[in-house]
Amino acid sequence: MTTSTQFLEDAAARLGPRGLTRDAELMSPWLTDWRGRYSGQACAMASPASTAELAELVRLCAAHGVPIVPQGGNSGMSGGATPDETGDAILLSLRRMNTIRDIDADARRVTCEAGVVLQTLHEAVEEKDLRFPLTLGGKGSATVGGLISTNAGGCQVLRHGSMRALVLGLEAVLADGQVFSMLTPLKKDNRGFDLKQLLIGSEGTMGIVTAATLKLMPAIADRVVIWAGVSSLGAARSLLLHCEDMAGDALEGFEVMPQACLEAVLKHLPSARPPLVESHPWHALIEVVADRSSAATLRERCEGMMAAAFDKDLVEDAAMSTSEAQAEAFWLLRESVAPAERERGPAVQHDISVPVEKMPDFVQTTAPMIEAEWPGTEAVAFGHLGDGNVHYHIIAPHVTDGLAWQKTEGKAISRRVHDLVTEWGGSISAEHGIGQLKRDELVRLGDPVALSMLRAVKNALDPQGLLNPGKLV
Amino acid sequence: MTTSTQFLEDAAARLGPRGLTRDAELMSPWLTDWRGRYSGQACAMASPASTAELAELVRLCAAHGVPIVPQGGNSGMSGGATPDETGDAILLSLRRMNTIRDIDADARRVTCEAGVVLQTLHEAVEEKDLRFPLTLGGKGSATVGGLISTNAGGCQVLRHGSMRALVLGLEAVLADGQVFSMLTPLKKDNRGFDLKQLLIGSEGTMGIVTAATLKLMPAIADRVVIWAGVSSLGAARSLLLHCEDMAGDALEGFEVMPQACLEAVLKHLPSARPPLVESHPWHALIEVVADRSSAATLRERCEGMMAAAFDKDLVEDAAMSTSEAQAEAFWLLRESVAPAERERGPAVQHDISVPVEKMPDFVQTTAPMIEAEWPGTEAVAFGHLGDGNVHYHIIAPHVTDGLAWQKTEGKAISRRVHDLVTEWGGSISAEHGIGQLKRDELVRLGDPVALSMLRAVKNALDPQGLLNPGKLV
Repeated sequence: MTTSTQFLEDAAARLGPRGLTRDAELMSPWLTDWRGRYSGQACAMASPASTAELAELVRLCAAHGVPIVPQGGNSGMSGGATPDETGDAILLSLRRMNTIRDIDADARRVTCEAGVVLQTLHEAVEEKDLRFPLTLGGKGSATVGGLISTNAGGCQVLRHGSMRALVLGLEAVLADGQVFSMLTPLKKDNRGFDLKQLLIGSEGTMGIVTAATLKLMPAIADRVVIWAGVSSLGAARSLLLHCEDMAGDALEGFEVMPQACLEAVLKHLPSARPPLVESHPWHALIEVVADRSSAATLRERCEGMMAAAFDKDLVEDAAMSTSEAQAEAFWLLRESVAPAERERGPAVQHDISVPVEKMPDFVQTTAPMIEAEWPGTEAVAFGHLGDGNVHYHIIAPHVTDGLAWQKTEGKAISRRVHDLVTEWGGSISAEHGIGQLKRDELVRLGDPVALSMLRAVKNALDPQGLLNPGKLV
Repeated sequence: MTTSTQFLEDAAARLGPRGLTRDAELMSPWLTDWRGRYSGQACAMASPASTAELAELVRLCAAHGVPIVPQGGNSGMSGGATPDETGDAILLSLRRMNTIRDIDADARRVTCEAGVVLQTLHEAVEEKDLRFPLTLGGKGSATVGGLISTNAGGCQVLRHGSMRALVLGLEAVLADGQVFSMLTPLKKDNRGFDLKQLLIGSEGTMGIVTAATLKLMPAIADRVVIWAGVSSLGAARSLLLHCEDMAGDALEGFEVMPQACLEAVLKHLPSARPPLVESHPWHALIEVVADRSSAATLRERCEGMMAAAFDKDLVEDAAMSTSEAQAEAFWLLRESVAPAERERGPAVQHDISVPVEKMPDFVQTTAPMIEAEWPGTEAVAFGHLGDGNVHYHIIAPHVTDGLAWQKTEGKAISRRVHDLVTEWGGSISAEHGIGQLKRDELVRLGDPVALSMLRAVKNALDPQGLLNPGKLV
């Protein structure tokens, strides 16, 4: 199908020159995902300035049967915002809709448009002594709409939940151009099931998020970051339970990495110092925070928690940050795992979850299996142990052409990892979403009842199948 | 339509004598809701013993076009579990499915069947030094399945959220008899939107909840209950903000009532003592809790919080519980508001929410309006200020026949209250659900886009319309 000239003329007339372009140069950066893994074509790129303009565009698309691929910061991990090769679809940028409509400091919430960049949001609420407790590597480009559509995670999910838990209200344009408007943040509302949940994590396939009311927290008054060396991933899990028990809600993060990851990081960051004197099989990074109400006793509580951990033989060694600079230095080690791993060579990457209590056994059992089946590979797991979510990288053997190896073996390795995750009751996508990357795997491994529900709801809300076709469903 | 003999024979054969009855005496208590407001008929009452038995029954119902009315403890507030008068439907009791399948103390979660009674759940997890942080008046009969289907609330929503926030996993039988099984509690799972949300709060119209995995919290180690006298509902809201700021996550409840309510309670409970010496326009009950990690400093923190509240002139007077007995005595006053109000005479009751910050103005503006439009009435608001949710009772004037008055005026008053709530951006059902009670009002006042989404999803998941017909949608 070729997009009709009539449609393009009508769209241009309604959106104006800033709102619609067919200029190949302007469109090009947005037709490939940031990691360069997916590329596509579009008949045009629309950048509406308001929900009303977008609703008009969607009605026009519905009338002409034009598919719509919504896009925020183009920083997704699964190709969910890249159109296909046909050029039939219109690429919909939400980036112009970037107004922070309202910050209510008393009620601790912010209402902002889909195109607001995460870092901009962080800075705007910090000025009011508040914080939005979700952050991730792509914060300089990721937008609120994209974060909601993918139910983004990050390193603070342990305490605050993923994006879903932070969305109080939502506005979206549906497939027929109607505007779903539930921005009013009622703490209690029992008029049927929570409709906005249909739009969170559905990757733009059920509707296009245009604005949201989000939950804010009091600013952090102080934090302590602890680096602990432990004997195994199982020991890390015991330490996690201990910290949950003793720190309660103050426990903000619990990340893990094996010694090999830390060594790669130290090689990648030549000026960084190892946090502990000796090496340890596994390392945990633990963040404990306090707001104004609890800051006075924070250090004392952390010391008590770690003293008890030593008494119970849960740690081999530990260092506690004594300054914000040191806290940041510890976090920098964690945040450098991904780039350091990339430096080590090509790897087949997975973003998986299993129930938290099964994670140590899962890694201990499956890593040697994979390494035996693909000789020379190394299976490395690191990340959000507190959420039962690790990034599971299978590093290429030392071959002359790692990229060629990745191309030949990648699919089979991923199938094997996903099979194992499914056997262990886990998810093949913990936080990165399905997009186009894992759509076949979802069909292959997803629960048939869940898939049929997903399809039934999709057909009900988007009978023409125009919203982000080829993604998720 | 008369239910076919074939259907009843087949159902009896599959469910056995304990699983199906047509005995009028056995069925009778369950054909009227506990408040005696709704009565209906059923062709039979089914009590399957397992999810597999229920799935078989549902397939049979689908084949014969027999409507199904699911029921837990029959303690709902909106007639959601009472069948209609035709006798076409089968009444489905989930009460036999009452096994607690597993309590994982480390992971702090419980998996139990739909028929488990809330109080039984409380007691089972208390034995493991944990608690399930949702409770309400009907806890001796309300079941887990009913609580999920209605997204139940209660007095601890402020900190822990309503039922929705506590459901980690779900199992349900869908309209075609397929079993949706997502009990595995993954903390992170981004395979599309969160399907289980379709079943939470949808009152049995999208599927029948058969089991759930629920979140548990550490047992409370200590609590302090504060009774505060304040000058207005606006002052109560300022005090709430102060407490949220100073107590953080330890703030478990913030309930309010006007002086008239307290007086009615003291009359209703002749042996109860007024918590404060003088009378005050409004009263707030504040609960602050601590688990083991924070118990040591609880009292001190509460004293600091209230001293600061006095300094800032936020309270007129306050009393802090010094024993568990006194904490209970304060709560007894709160819990006696509903029976004390019933003693005062007939009232037209509403369960409404508006954004928390608007609640003082809402009550102050609308109460005099209602009282002027229906001379002799008294508009009383009490309840969960922290959630922006009050029970709003319009008490009958002193007339000879209050019940007749209620019958004549009730509907018009409710329409007026619901119009006002809608104008103020609130919900006509904060925690009691829609059921049959508010279905017409939802159609009249609900957002047309939201209603059309609700209907589209309903049609997609239950095309024959057999699941709890006449409720919600």
